[in-house]
Amino acid sequence: MFSLEDETFQVFGICSLLLLAKMTFMSLLTSRQRIKTGKFANKEDSYFGDKSAPANLKESLKANDEVERVRRAHMNDMENIYPFILIGFFYCLTGPNSNTAKFHFITFLMARVLHTIVYILAVKQPARGICYFVGMLVNASMILQSIAHYM
Amino acid sequence: MFSLEDETFQVFGICSLLLLAKMTFMSLLTSRQRIKTGKFANKEDSYFGDKSAPANLKESLKANDEVERVRRAHMNDMENIYPFILIGFFYCLTGPNSNTAKFHFITFLMARVLHTIVYILAVKQPARGICYFVGMLVNASMILQSIAHYM
Amino acid sequence: MFSLEDETFQVFGICSLLLLAKMTFMSLLTSRQRIKTGKFANKEDSYFGDKSAPANLKESLKANDEVERVRRAHMNDMENIYPFILIGFFYCLTGPNSNTAKFHFITFLMARVLHTIVYILAVKQPARGICYFVGMLVNASMILQSIAHYM
Repeated sequence: MFSLEDETFQVFGICSLLLLAKMTFMSLLTSRQRIKTGKFANKEDSYFGDKSAPANLKESLKANDEVERVRRAHMNDMENIYPFILIGFFYCLTGPNSNTAKFHFITFLMARVLHTIVYILAVKQPARGICYFVGMLVNASMILQSIAHYM
Repeated sequence: MFSLEDETFQVFGICSLLLLAKMTFMSLLTSRQRIKTGKFANKEDSYFGDKSAPANLKESLKANDEVERVRRAHMNDMENIYPFILIGFFYCLTGPNSNTAKFHFITFLMARVLHTIVYILAVKQPARGICYFVGMLVNASMILQSIAHYM
Repeated sequence: MFSLEDETFQVFGICSLLLLAKMTFMSLLTSRQRIKTGKFANKEDSYFGDKSAPANLKESLKANDEVERVRRAHMNDMENIYPFILIGFFYCLTGPNSNTAKFHFITFLMARVLHTIVYILAVKQPARGICYFVGMLVNASMILQSIAHYM
């Protein structure tokens, strides 16, 4: 059932890979923010900072809200996207209706992409809350359907 | 071998899905704790706070021990449950003895459910240490058996 | 295609399992560092501390750089190794050239093992930056190849 001929699995694969690509991009964004703001987590990382600026180790190790925001968004992805992919593998094996399954995958993809945009731009709530909740509902729905099938 | 007809894989699937359901529930618990205590990670989230209370942004962004405890428990899940599921996939492919395998899966499930309860209720040590260690032993055992088989 | 007869998948399995073993070891290392330095995240954990030392709860809950360094290395693993394994499953299904695939897996394994060593020993940058970047490149390359194949 894990086959590229299976359209359901194919859509699952594309959505998962796009989300993982998004997460990889978030890592790069954190590094860029750290270098831009000169805020690092490790003392040895000041190597990447602005050499012309007077070194101030204590200052450079302080948390910075711009950096922390990207980190929290990334963390939230780890709490939601990893489960989505793991659940998805089990879910695909239950042989779900193809349209229902694709609806789940694409809704999750859109919810999480919007979640990141809304998080980074610090859009007014409840925008992010809604994106988060939609993603979680998709995961919960796939879990319930899969458990029902495995029992 | 990833088939619902295979009883070993079926038990693996149910244990994994129950653990992922538990983790989803932890996310909701964090949100609930944040709203209850009025402690948020982002400035825009005070939207969800008590509107009658006088707004105090700095105060609301302070870490709160009740919130942080749930977060640490959730984090610990990410460090242990995700590996369990990933290892489990490889382990199932080695065609392990069905009873041995089911013993691993169910022990892990129980250890992690107890771990969460003990963590949230702040039960005296070494209760949590034992739950944690049992889960880790299951993972280590599956890793060793799988590597031996793949070599 | 998820079969132990397939050499590509076999190498993928061994690399993934070794990386997961490394991560399990990191958890143990954190616990050891916490006990050694007497710095804990939870008030009940001082149980594991030095009983002869005068108890000082506030002091023992302070973050410690030695502990936090291991934790950050572990966190970085969660941001990179979990995606590697998830991407790898999809990538193996596309039936990649065996030598290309094995090159990806072994490069990633070496980059991440070096990353941990360099992180824990606080080696001068850009050592860690390079390890990190190589790992990320492998993930990006597998994502791109897989998406191209799934489309």
